[in-house]
Amino acid sequence: MKNSENDLIEGVNSGSRVCLSKLISLVESDKSAIFRIIDSLNKRTESSYVVGITGPPGAGKSTLTNRLIQNYRKKNLSVAVLAVDPSSPFTGGAVLGDRIRMQEHALDDEVFIRSIGSRGDLGGLSSATSAIIKLFDSFGMDIVIIETVGVGQTELDIIKISDCVLVTLVPEAGDGVQAMKAGLMEIGDVFVVNKADRGGAEKLAREIDYMISLKHKNTNWNTKVILAEAENDVGTKNIVNEIDSFKEYEIQSNELNKKRTLRKVSEIETLLFQRMKYELESLKLDKDVKNIMSKVSKSDLEPEEAVNLIFKLFKKNF
Amino acid sequence: MKNSENDLIEGVNSGSRVCLSKLISLVESDKSAIFRIIDSLNKRTESSYVVGITGPPGAGKSTLTNRLIQNYRKKNLSVAVLAVDPSSPFTGGAVLGDRIRMQEHALDDEVFIRSIGSRGDLGGLSSATSAIIKLFDSFGMDIVIIETVGVGQTELDIIKISDCVLVTLVPEAGDGVQAMKAGLMEIGDVFVVNKADRGGAEKLAREIDYMISLKHKNTNWNTKVILAEAENDVGTKNIVNEIDSFKEYEIQSNELNKKRTLRKVSEIETLLFQRMKYELESLKLDKDVKNIMSKVSKSDLEPEEAVNLIFKLFKKNF
Repeated sequence: MKNSENDLIEGVNSGSRVCLSKLISLVESDKSAIFRIIDSLNKRTESSYVVGITGPPGAGKSTLTNRLIQNYRKKNLSVAVLAVDPSSPFTGGAVLGDRIRMQEHALDDEVFIRSIGSRGDLGGLSSATSAIIKLFDSFGMDIVIIETVGVGQTELDIIKISDCVLVTLVPEAGDGVQAMKAGLMEIGDVFVVNKADRGGAEKLAREIDYMISLKHKNTNWNTKVILAEAENDVGTKNIVNEIDSFKEYEIQSNELNKKRTLRKVSEIETLLFQRMKYELESLKLDKDVKNIMSKVSKSDLEPEEAVNLIFKLFKKNF
Repeated sequence: MKNSENDLIEGVNSGSRVCLSKLISLVESDKSAIFRIIDSLNKRTESSYVVGITGPPGAGKSTLTNRLIQNYRKKNLSVAVLAVDPSSPFTGGAVLGDRIRMQEHALDDEVFIRSIGSRGDLGGLSSATSAIIKLFDSFGMDIVIIETVGVGQTELDIIKISDCVLVTLVPEAGDGVQAMKAGLMEIGDVFVVNKADRGGAEKLAREIDYMISLKHKNTNWNTKVILAEAENDVGTKNIVNEIDSFKEYEIQSNELNKKRTLRKVSEIETLLFQRMKYELESLKLDKDVKNIMSKVSKSDLEPEEAVNLIFKLFKKNF
């Protein structure tokens, strides 16, 4: 571990927001960093509760996130927000226009907001997301909200990192069916019909209710649909209460523990691959490996033969 | 290498079609096999010329492939066909209905036709495709035709394995624009407007011509659009001639060598990952690794810490 990294970790462990911000940038840009620092981070027994917010573009997710922050602050809970935008290569800081409306929290030390891009990562959420959640957790945030700006796989991947998934929809023609097709019905623990002042909100809520009733249930949780107008702060308190009820249910039924354990075990596989990747990257700088590569480019070796040779080296030097 | 594998390789090296068929099944089902056998396969100086055929469903790719086989056989060249269907989990043998019309070649020893599915592979072409091309090459096939039945990424990935990419379109409303959007304009070395007896064929050809003229050119190849009716064997000879011209151009300009070299070098990375994957799979069976995993499931270890420990073991035992 580098000296400067040590300073950052000490900073985070003693509550410095500046160090947290810098450490987030570090794990975002250097995906091997989390392996070096994980041992030195503060550990908590009562960890952050992770709320994932997903839904189609234009569903008002950022506005809703802002309302959730306000509600949690009223309960005196600290909140971290991570907005993941898979279409954006930009990272760090508040790059999204929507983030602007969260600036009212800029002076609140118990609120931490961050956007990351994930373009270039292999589909879905950025591989940095789970590392950043760990930093928020270690920093002592009570609630971590992950907001996905993206569509497709990112929407669904949110279930892999969230304790509670909030699916946000708006009354649009066929939106319920679209959501079902996209697999959103399967992952929601709480459903929100936002912009409920528009026509068709009740109808969409009934559609979702019906689709929920068709789901194969393997839990005792009674999934509800909540009507809201995040813009006008209507129904947002209900949403927070519903998330709380879900958390309570998860704790009582031991579902939360089970979910987190499963998540950790499946995370090992992903992390092993990441780790392998760095090892391979550094291997590529090796003189002998470069020699082998150059033989392939001269057609003296087939790629498979090269890989066999590289692995022999790997085993010897590793 | 297993004994039976040795027999198969010897068979392939001495020209047995049955052994070739079995060896293809082997590299298809066991993706580590190619690493074991590559050293023992016959090497050729004059290797197969790989023609990739892609285009939207219903463009008549199989009919066209059939005509290409006939044309190449008239030139006394041997032809292997690999049809990749990413939507199909079925593999081996002639599973596609379209293959039936190729049965006229069933008794021709210089024609070898095979279908593979690629469902379950991570997007695009099956990772077995490039291994199977190597088997065809070693077997001495003059022409290898890769026909993608799929859409999306598979269509585009064909450029990674082909010496010449044939894009096949049919006159349909907006088909040219669709093709452009799908990225097909970028990858075609030869364009075919099939079913040219339908209305709109000339118009589509002009559209494609125009789009080709807009392309940023970094070669001296003059990409052409050929009108054809594969069903009635109209224009198919022109297509074969155009492929020949492209091959000639590629050889004269040294583009073919450059392309193949780049391909091999970039293949090393993919293969290194594949190889890593097997190593990881076997690692998971290790007793110590199992112990570490169980600590994670008891929340005694964070996944990142587990990966650190597993890698320490890996380095020690590897």
